Amino acid sequence: MSDPVRIGVLGRGTVGGAFAQLVAERADAVAAVAGRRPEVVGVLSRSEGDFDEILAGADVVVELIGGTDPARDHVLRALRAGKHVITANKQLVAQHGDELFAAAREGGVQLRFEAAVAGVVPVIRVIQESLAGTAITKVFGIVNGTTNFILSEMAKTGASYEAVLARAQELGYAEADPTDDVGGADAAAKMAILARLAFGTSVGLDDVPYEGITDIQPDDLAYAKELGLSLKLLGVAEMRDGGISVRVFPCFLYPGHPLAPVEGPFNAVMVEAPAITEITMSGPGAGGTATATAVLGDLVSILSGDAPVHEPTVRLPVVRDVASSFYLHLEVADRPGVLAAVADVLGRNEISVRSVVQRGTGQEARLVMVMHETPESAFYAALSELGRLDFMRATPRAIRVIEEEFL
Amino acid sequence: MSDPVRIGVLGRGTVGGAFAQLVAERADAVAAVAGRRPEVVGVLSRSEGDFDEILAGADVVVELIGGTDPARDHVLRALRAGKHVITANKQLVAQHGDELFAAAREGGVQLRFEAAVAGVVPVIRVIQESLAGTAITKVFGIVNGTTNFILSEMAKTGASYEAVLARAQELGYAEADPTDDVGGADAAAKMAILARLAFGTSVGLDDVPYEGITDIQPDDLAYAKELGLSLKLLGVAEMRDGGISVRVFPCFLYPGHPLAPVEGPFNAVMVEAPAITEITMSGPGAGGTATATAVLGDLVSILSGDAPVHEPTVRLPVVRDVASSFYLHLEVADRPGVLAAVADVLGRNEISVRSVVQRGTGQEARLVMVMHETPESAFYAALSELGRLDFMRATPRAIRVIEEEFL
Repeated sequence: MSDPVRIGVLGRGTVGGAFAQLVAERADAVAAVAGRRPEVVGVLSRSEGDFDEILAGADVVVELIGGTDPARDHVLRALRAGKHVITANKQLVAQHGDELFAAAREGGVQLRFEAAVAGVVPVIRVIQESLAGTAITKVFGIVNGTTNFILSEMAKTGASYEAVLARAQELGYAEADPTDDVGGADAAAKMAILARLAFGTSVGLDDVPYEGITDIQPDDLAYAKELGLSLKLLGVAEMRDGGISVRVFPCFLYPGHPLAPVEGPFNAVMVEAPAITEITMSGPGAGGTATATAVLGDLVSILSGDAPVHEPTVRLPVVRDVASSFYLHLEVADRPGVLAAVADVLGRNEISVRSVVQRGTGQEARLVMVMHETPESAFYAALSELGRLDFMRATPRAIRVIEEEFL
Repeated sequence: MSDPVRIGVLGRGTVGGAFAQLVAERADAVAAVAGRRPEVVGVLSRSEGDFDEILAGADVVVELIGGTDPARDHVLRALRAGKHVITANKQLVAQHGDELFAAAREGGVQLRFEAAVAGVVPVIRVIQESLAGTAITKVFGIVNGTTNFILSEMAKTGASYEAVLARAQELGYAEADPTDDVGGADAAAKMAILARLAFGTSVGLDDVPYEGITDIQPDDLAYAKELGLSLKLLGVAEMRDGGISVRVFPCFLYPGHPLAPVEGPFNAVMVEAPAITEITMSGPGAGGTATATAVLGDLVSILSGDAPVHEPTVRLPVVRDVASSFYLHLEVADRPGVLAAVADVLGRNEISVRSVVQRGTGQEARLVMVMHETPESAFYAALSELGRLDFMRATPRAIRVIEEEFL
């Protein structure tokens, strides 16, 4: 048996604790498949440990601090010192990917980050290794467990966003400050990473427009049920119109879509390529032990060989005005001519309607429509016109819909 | 750029052709991630090429002949000559795994076989790498696309097994001689491979009892629909009662089970471990290009590092009398006392009933029951007793049911 592989752990939170325990429990199993026994030789926390000392004594540095400062500095120094690095930090990889991958190439070491996207669901490994020789056209899915839990609960119980968020916080599915999750920034960082790997091009956070779920109303979910739809916060990265489009937005899915049944704090990602049709992967997106398991998987990979080199091979333009299908919720005065006026605005903007539900509530009426696919610029122009109509009783609400029907 | 990696291909069928084309198309992409450009330098078919010559000129041998003779001999010789081998041949790996892995260890080379199980669905890679440090407790799923297509079509159309099989043959989803697929032997070989990798123990074909779908009647699917169930041919490998149980059988799933919506020629595999809850992966299980893509993924892995060593780490007993839940279909004379007599047989064998549908058809009645979980030996004892009752009008039919309810 060779020397043990010495691991320095940065961060002492839930994942750090679970990882240390997992290494202790599974050291023999790792040695059996990878030839070397892992051993945690130092842990850095806010109050304890010295980074330089840990760096000097480690073969592999595991970064579980989160955020970009001091994580970026520590990871860069480790890579430049010739140490392999494993990180679960999506913001770090999404914001500083170019710099980090360059440091890894220069240091001749590996930077691995399976746990940064969809936890133990092996989407990074599949894109980088199983499909390394494949022309991927689209990667999309549910990459934030907090929002998927909230949307599932809202659909199930009819409760408000605020009430369900409070419950998610109690259960530990949402943080005390949930802004990054519910606002879509967390999912956007993950999609930037997936787009970079899938398309071999440099993608920054600025290239990823995102929307969250904070404006979703119980009403939207009730009408969606009537139309047979389920609501998810989707991240979508695709080759489109000669460039790439990477976006995060709440979206209705038709029944039969492979992502429609994914409920609760789970993540699920689909990868499409002409050669393979599609692969779907799902599992727990977070949690101390699941994340620690993904980190341990990366350790096994480091012990088994080289990581992909992550040098952008192409420079692809970012396409912004993509075509989407929308659900539109209008509160209007209940009087003759309203539907005709709405239809006129849509028609002039060349937007065609797929289905309509209208319901009077006394003085007012609610008009819920699902549109066929149309360029987003045209749809938003129509939306702005609709908002100025004198019979409109509230700001119009729009949510995207995945229109394709599956098997 | 280093020298190209020279590939010798054994077999010139659908997958072989697709692989040669994929290598030509994606050589630059492979070189970009793995550092070396792949090049097919020789192809062996029945009528053309010389194995020794191909072996001498290749760095990597890709075996796509199928069957075990001459595939076994060729693969062993390649491994012993210090050449990496990629194979899509499940029978070869299932029947001769111990010998092949030993030859790879001795030769200091890699043997990779992602395409042998579930095509491009990366179940082998996930078990061996992502979850290499994880105590897997169960691997199960739909690993034969032919039977899944047939069962989906029978459920959808109400047509007979024979009629749907003929249609599957026309569409290319079933072979001219479909015995291995529809009889369960193909799935059994794949489950033997998955069990070996998941549990680190040597598993042979004899350790895997299997049943196929040839006896499934349209009636079974009609009653199942009434009970809200869908029918799949499942492979299950699990740690159970201090040993392992690996089996293949047709099985009803309750709605909400992650495998219930998998339709048509798709494959889907779930991996369970306490640390990760579960991961589900699905995609096309076969097809020339998808299989060739999986082979190309293995090539990238070979260029990137070492393969796991595949030395059995434990010797686990095979548990045979596992507990299962069953669906039971009885055709009986329509007269008083029949239900009581059936209930008596079940009760004496300590089998409890979960749901019953009884329907008279004039002189006869059909009794369809779903049982709670019970040891299979007890159930089969009861089944044999039931078959001897004088009011039984046809041989009782039994199909397993997955009873657990999901999310």
